[in-house]
Amino acid sequence: MNLEFARIARLQRRFRQPHPDVVAIGDDAAVLPPSSEALVLTVDASVEGVHFRREWLSWREVAMRAVHAAASDVAAMGGDFASHSAGLLFALELPTEGFSEGDFDELIEGLALAAESLNAQVLGGNLARAASSHVSITTTALGVVRGPKLLRSGAVPGDSLCVTGPVGAAAVGLRALIAQREAEPAFARFVQAWRHPRAHLEAGSELTRIATACIDVSDGLLQDASHLALASHVGLEITSSRIPMLEGQRSAALALAGDALALALTGGEDYVLLFTSKNPENYCTIGRVTAGTGVRVDGVEIGTAAPSLGWDHFKT
Amino acid sequence: MNLEFARIARLQRRFRQPHPDVVAIGDDAAVLPPSSEALVLTVDASVEGVHFRREWLSWREVAMRAVHAAASDVAAMGGDFASHSAGLLFALELPTEGFSEGDFDELIEGLALAAESLNAQVLGGNLARAASSHVSITTTALGVVRGPKLLRSGAVPGDSLCVTGPVGAAAVGLRALIAQREAEPAFARFVQAWRHPRAHLEAGSELTRIATACIDVSDGLLQDASHLALASHVGLEITSSRIPMLEGQRSAALALAGDALALALTGGEDYVLLFTSKNPENYCTIGRVTAGTGVRVDGVEIGTAAPSLGWDHFKT
Repeated sequence: MNLEFARIARLQRRFRQPHPDVVAIGDDAAVLPPSSEALVLTVDASVEGVHFRREWLSWREVAMRAVHAAASDVAAMGGDFASHSAGLLFALELPTEGFSEGDFDELIEGLALAAESLNAQVLGGNLARAASSHVSITTTALGVVRGPKLLRSGAVPGDSLCVTGPVGAAAVGLRALIAQREAEPAFARFVQAWRHPRAHLEAGSELTRIATACIDVSDGLLQDASHLALASHVGLEITSSRIPMLEGQRSAALALAGDALALALTGGEDYVLLFTSKNPENYCTIGRVTAGTGVRVDGVEIGTAAPSLGWDHFKT
Repeated sequence: MNLEFARIARLQRRFRQPHPDVVAIGDDAAVLPPSSEALVLTVDASVEGVHFRREWLSWREVAMRAVHAAASDVAAMGGDFASHSAGLLFALELPTEGFSEGDFDELIEGLALAAESLNAQVLGGNLARAASSHVSITTTALGVVRGPKLLRSGAVPGDSLCVTGPVGAAAVGLRALIAQREAEPAFARFVQAWRHPRAHLEAGSELTRIATACIDVSDGLLQDASHLALASHVGLEITSSRIPMLEGQRSAALALAGDALALALTGGEDYVLLFTSKNPENYCTIGRVTAGTGVRVDGVEIGTAAPSLGWDHFKT
């Protein structure tokens, strides 16, 4: 049996059987039952050397991170995977050298654990040889959404601007990894935040009820806020002191010669949801929606789509 | 405006607007209306240096090939894109050097043309920097399927074994490209077959009516036949003289020091559909389904999943 088939056999064993009405791994494509709910569909790539370095994560963590990052886009639309018509596909590009069968099994284990944590069926995928020595995981996430559409557009002046969790912790963790200080206890929770992000699926589902607009914070709070402002044709006013952070975040950032606020504004990869609402219930309010355009922090105009607000894949 | 946003703006302009009920490019994920039909979902990668070399194709052709290869898996399940709940997503990994804005526009043009030829909405995608100097296109295809399920399993002894088009032409064309003889008129139609494959979507839809099992020929006739035999728990008997080829295929293969039959059996990338049926109507019958296991050609047992029947991504 050739290596590709042997690997497919192993991952078929590891992934949970989907619902009997579903055709998954082992045919040309997955077949899903009709859906009475609207569908949410997204794709997201996690590329070694671009999104992560293998020294920073186990293969299991690489896989879990990739899946949660993709699922976060489903969460931002208010979707989840609680349907037989929903699930995940994984397209893996794997180098022939420097990536063992043990590494493959670790990666598959991470994909399976992430799918289980999201309550998502694994529907199939694709195995290809990588063009270089770098691993790439491209996750396709198909979710369902109940209730009204939750988009980037829809924010109205007067709404509160809110987040579903702490911001900037992952960016502090990434700095600790770059500085090779990830073993120091002061950085543990931040490294953990970067290594083990989770998609805010439950919050996303709740937000279909109360939010007027929503986006996930993947590229940096300012950049993602700019996207929301632009799509909604509004301005956003953030009060920096209200941005929620983890305990010790400011001192940890300082110890790494960084500024916790700057990292929170531009860091990204927290995968919390940023949303606007007339009634944000218990979620953390960090600002408000105004007339006009652009994003202001403590009254200072930042502008929309400024070049260095966050992550640009093609910046050289 | 940063380069990623500028590119997103350009591709938003080029791709046709989807149906007004659909949320596509520009939000965190696509939102599709509920589907009363079963869904077909697949993902397929096309990696430079693995699936193609840039000397062999224009960027427009690279893109069209990638999309049709992914759509072929939808065709093999009897699905198509004629629904507001169906469409395509493109995850692109693009190098920062050696890939110009003109190349990007050519690639996008190819994706758009392929989507139009498939009557498929473009729903979104992902742009990432490549880890190497190689381009990678990962296509997610979401189709719908009417009528009974069309799977690899379901073939019954006594059924005819059939194909929806000529086999091995693409493999001859690939040989001509490798030999740098693609400009010779004798090879033109074969190079064309390799460069411009098309997913057999219409045939696939028809086959839901008449076929008992189906697979697309992407990895080589023997390997794909083996998959079908294994999934259906049957044997397959192929009569080599009945395999349809293009005019001049034998002499073109010979001129390239190849054997047309061997290339047809192992070459792959024709993207015709291989199916079994009690009543194959006007399709070309190349053999029959038998009891037992494995694939025989002219009475010679080839075995299932033999190591060199076709493409193995991890063969070194």
